[in-house]
Amino acid sequence: MSKGLFITLEGGEGVGKSTQLKLLQAALLSAGVDVVTTREPGGSPGAEELRQVLLFGKHPLSLRAEILTHFAARYDHVDQVITPALEAGKVVVCDRFTDSTLAYQGYGRAEGNPDVLRLISRLQEQLGRDPDMTFLLEAPRDVARLRLAARGAPVDRYELSDEGFHARVLAGFQEIARQDTGRVRRISTDGLSPEAVNAMIVKDIRARLQ
Amino acid sequence: MSKGLFITLEGGEGVGKSTQLKLLQAALLSAGVDVVTTREPGGSPGAEELRQVLLFGKHPLSLRAEILTHFAARYDHVDQVITPALEAGKVVVCDRFTDSTLAYQGYGRAEGNPDVLRLISRLQEQLGRDPDMTFLLEAPRDVARLRLAARGAPVDRYELSDEGFHARVLAGFQEIARQDTGRVRRISTDGLSPEAVNAMIVKDIRARLQ
Repeated sequence: MSKGLFITLEGGEGVGKSTQLKLLQAALLSAGVDVVTTREPGGSPGAEELRQVLLFGKHPLSLRAEILTHFAARYDHVDQVITPALEAGKVVVCDRFTDSTLAYQGYGRAEGNPDVLRLISRLQEQLGRDPDMTFLLEAPRDVARLRLAARGAPVDRYELSDEGFHARVLAGFQEIARQDTGRVRRISTDGLSPEAVNAMIVKDIRARLQ
Repeated sequence: MSKGLFITLEGGEGVGKSTQLKLLQAALLSAGVDVVTTREPGGSPGAEELRQVLLFGKHPLSLRAEILTHFAARYDHVDQVITPALEAGKVVVCDRFTDSTLAYQGYGRAEGNPDVLRLISRLQEQLGRDPDMTFLLEAPRDVARLRLAARGAPVDRYELSDEGFHARVLAGFQEIARQDTGRVRRISTDGLSPEAVNAMIVKDIRARLQ
């Protein structure tokens, strides 16, 4: 193939995005596709430094500042990793992107405040790089919580937030999917094996790459 | 006085901004003015964490990402320090603000690229907080370099840049002053004692506070 494809995986914590990222990478590689996997916030060396401030900083930023820091990291990630890979004709698969900023900061923190949603939209427009395909993974919150508990990874700022916050985030993702049905495919992972979810994603991508 | 006043000090490195900040603070305090002094990048706890990434990070950010990180720090500084102080009726004096982003990133790094200047202007518009008065301190570059050498402070990213860069930054500050003569007062410090420069600044501010 001669032109790149930019794919994002979205959803709440514990929904299986990291597992799907690995399965998707393996499936695309075995199909001979030149694939780059990455994640946000972070994904480039400078953006990873900003990730530390965002997730583990000692002093919480104001909401607007937090949004700008997410986009600062995103701009670096796009400029230094995503755009060069796409221009080299690769498939880029990214764990989280602007939809997560909309869901977590816009719908979660700001409870859908239109000024905040508008700030995020403008920063995204100025970025000039939208995903071609987005897979929104969805699971019941109690399943996701069990998965998080089993993971045992360091707990960041977002995972510590209350359940009302998480409910707004998940409703935010659903709203994003409703507004952009052409780009966003919702996948309910409930009762499916990771391999079955992977097969659904790979089928969609192969159709797009034909 | 019942309403705040937001004053910024601008100019290249080694031009005497820090000295003027201290002299101005002392003069305003002795005149019974409730004054807060601060500086950028930084000025609030979260913004100081971003300052570390900007000035001493191991991995340079892309130009656009660097600009967004400056504004992320600025949004936090405005939200958590500057706006609360102004709303309490205080005078806020800040060492560097958006004019420095325009001069260093817009005119210095990007050599006046209109897309970059526009990005900075939009981020400033969305910030919604402009200085009421700006004092642009100017000194011949060789005087500023001597002062920098005498200071012996840790050298950051910007001070390491070449002389062509510094010339563009200083020309950028001049351009900003030309475009906004109502807000920006240029002060040539050459041949003046710090106390004489301070007297000029204090006189302007007292006229404004009457």
